[in-house]
Amino acid sequence: MGRRTNPLLSFSRLEIFMDGVFAIAITLLVIEIKVPGHKEIDELGGLRNYLISIWPHYISYMVSFFILGVWWSSMNHFHLMVKKTNHTFNIINVFFLMTIAFIPFTTAVMGEYTSYTEYRNVAVTTYCIGYYLPSLSAVIMVLYAFHRHRLVDPLLSQKFMDRFRNKIIAGNAMVLLALISSFFYPIVALIITGITFILFFIPPEEPEYEDQNQITEINN
Amino acid sequence: MGRRTNPLLSFSRLEIFMDGVFAIAITLLVIEIKVPGHKEIDELGGLRNYLISIWPHYISYMVSFFILGVWWSSMNHFHLMVKKTNHTFNIINVFFLMTIAFIPFTTAVMGEYTSYTEYRNVAVTTYCIGYYLPSLSAVIMVLYAFHRHRLVDPLLSQKFMDRFRNKIIAGNAMVLLALISSFFYPIVALIITGITFILFFIPPEEPEYEDQNQITEINN
Amino acid sequence: MGRRTNPLLSFSRLEIFMDGVFAIAITLLVIEIKVPGHKEIDELGGLRNYLISIWPHYISYMVSFFILGVWWSSMNHFHLMVKKTNHTFNIINVFFLMTIAFIPFTTAVMGEYTSYTEYRNVAVTTYCIGYYLPSLSAVIMVLYAFHRHRLVDPLLSQKFMDRFRNKIIAGNAMVLLALISSFFYPIVALIITGITFILFFIPPEEPEYEDQNQITEINN
Amino acid sequence: MGRRTNPLLSFSRLEIFMDGVFAIAITLLVIEIKVPGHKEIDELGGLRNYLISIWPHYISYMVSFFILGVWWSSMNHFHLMVKKTNHTFNIINVFFLMTIAFIPFTTAVMGEYTSYTEYRNVAVTTYCIGYYLPSLSAVIMVLYAFHRHRLVDPLLSQKFMDRFRNKIIAGNAMVLLALISSFFYPIVALIITGITFILFFIPPEEPEYEDQNQITEINN
Repeated sequence: MGRRTNPLLSFSRLEIFMDGVFAIAITLLVIEIKVPGHKEIDELGGLRNYLISIWPHYISYMVSFFILGVWWSSMNHFHLMVKKTNHTFNIINVFFLMTIAFIPFTTAVMGEYTSYTEYRNVAVTTYCIGYYLPSLSAVIMVLYAFHRHRLVDPLLSQKFMDRFRNKIIAGNAMVLLALISSFFYPIVALIITGITFILFFIPPEEPEYEDQNQITEINN
Repeated sequence: MGRRTNPLLSFSRLEIFMDGVFAIAITLLVIEIKVPGHKEIDELGGLRNYLISIWPHYISYMVSFFILGVWWSSMNHFHLMVKKTNHTFNIINVFFLMTIAFIPFTTAVMGEYTSYTEYRNVAVTTYCIGYYLPSLSAVIMVLYAFHRHRLVDPLLSQKFMDRFRNKIIAGNAMVLLALISSFFYPIVALIITGITFILFFIPPEEPEYEDQNQITEINN
Repeated sequence: MGRRTNPLLSFSRLEIFMDGVFAIAITLLVIEIKVPGHKEIDELGGLRNYLISIWPHYISYMVSFFILGVWWSSMNHFHLMVKKTNHTFNIINVFFLMTIAFIPFTTAVMGEYTSYTEYRNVAVTTYCIGYYLPSLSAVIMVLYAFHRHRLVDPLLSQKFMDRFRNKIIAGNAMVLLALISSFFYPIVALIITGITFILFFIPPEEPEYEDQNQITEINN
Repeated sequence: MGRRTNPLLSFSRLEIFMDGVFAIAITLLVIEIKVPGHKEIDELGGLRNYLISIWPHYISYMVSFFILGVWWSSMNHFHLMVKKTNHTFNIINVFFLMTIAFIPFTTAVMGEYTSYTEYRNVAVTTYCIGYYLPSLSAVIMVLYAFHRHRLVDPLLSQKFMDRFRNKIIAGNAMVLLALISSFFYPIVALIITGITFILFFIPPEEPEYEDQNQITEINN
């Protein structure tokens, strides 16, 4: 009784599935921006006034779109290193996607209520929870995949992995700090969050691999 | 008049189509969690109270997401063995997807009404029906694909197929038991369902293949 | 100044795009089945009564899902013969998808109003229009792709293409007949439609190709 | 310490992600066409009258579907030349998709309010903004990818790239003209927009490549 070469689950299908969830979550955001009814327009003195009055929804749409887009791009980058998957990793990914698909809800709550003084704290906290959960799942995902090169390219350099993991954990710590701040000073939470956005524009480091020849020599 | 090598329908497209349906069904779940209007918030004494009061929707979201994610992962695993498709298998898959895309509805009914004593029986039964239908379709799908190695790798071991099929049928029997229990004792149905969730965390067995050389020898 | 080998547009991306539209259209159908509010349930005397009373929506969901699934499978079959695409074919496909994505609307109208005697004619006509439009687009698509082997495998047998085209046109004629009947006798339209459903279960014919050697001989 | 051959981000995944967003945005359009409630139908004197009265929604659906379909096809054409991606290009693409996914909203506003004299100006302006933004993002995308053959095939002819870029910029200028006109003469904006639609039917030019041998000679 023998075994074929690809005993593990298909990683390319996991990628397609994840890309699908990201594409849908990101496109569903526009549903939150409602086309005004005739009554709402009359109350606000015309279509132009209405379209201007809902500006927080445009911001909310752009912020959510950007966050989800950057998360998608980061996963694309991370997956360059991942070479296979297994049952546990699939389940971790399901939990990660669960937190990604939840973002539209938390951002909508912030978009709707952050301009009301009495609800600002709760709105910002809700948003920070939605922002923290994918970060937490990503840490678990990276730790699991990197542990003893479990799912990554066996030639991926240990030094690179250590730097990559430390950055992910540092990012997670920043978002956690924003979440904790939100209970006391919402404005601090928003500033920390804004800083993480700026960091998103820094291109991620290219993966580094051990020299294969060198490895072969060691093995010989 | 000759024939080209791939006369059967494209299996990779069936995979993409299925992954798409799963990705959409799983992401649509968040739509059920409504962003509160200002009136609803005032009635419940503030945004914080409202967001806490809708906790059954969070549970409902997580449960649905997890079930659909595990079903997707199981299909990914099953498809490792499937090597081609045909018209009948496509139609069976359409029926399977019909039951998958129905889960958001049945879970939403449970999430909304399971906490009301007078509706609990009906809510749990509805949920169990939604949980049972994909399981039934999966049994039909596996039986059809495995029958005389109809659509699977010809080297897939018969012993493995028997074990796999028996597990699927046993799982189906458990869910059927939950469905029947739900008419009389909803709590029993929920306990059985909970046990099936725990079983989802056990990694599925890797497919086993007959030794190709051995087969060739037999054929010679 | 030279030219690379793939000057035409990517056909595999057209396939992915179409599969995506089909997957979304088919999964959006469940959104039409609304989770009942507490008021609606009280009016109808409980959750069980409500869930039973909306049976036309379940039928509507199943019918739409089946039609869209069969259309997807038929396109999968048709695309086995198509080897490339061009700008015009992409635009024809956009129109085809426009008619596919419209089906949820027409089916929903039928599901909601076919049980009211005064609206039955209009509901069935609406449904038949939604059923006819993809069929019409498919005829145009096949005629365009088959014309002088424009986009199909150059070895695809002319006899097979003629049979395939005639079947598609015959199917279109049946649906047109259903549409015309719907103005006068809705029941006749539904019977014709039901017959076309049964025909969907017949597996499509496998594409036939000319013997390549024979062709080579002719060319030499 | 060495490096593997694909240090840059996966371009095929960017394509899948973009196809997904396009497929979803285009399919969500049908959600705007609401199935009428019994009250609305009674007010308008029957189902037939209602279905006729909402004709602007059908036009709106067709226009949006066509625009999004053509944008998708144009991206498919553009991507034939693109060979890789990087962090900045991914972010530009996220902004492009942000403008694509916004089109359903602006088209819905136009579909709902263009027939009211007092709101026509604002409705057409809104629509023109939604039409202009993807065009602007596309210019940025092309300029970035083409600059010193940054992300395109190194053999792509400079003459072709210049012509392609000029066409994109000319198209952008036309849409900008439509947008500016909309503030003063909505009808002029609609006419210009209509002309751009007709231009969409012209097949795009096939990419031209330098002769590889010639290049090799120059390098030697």
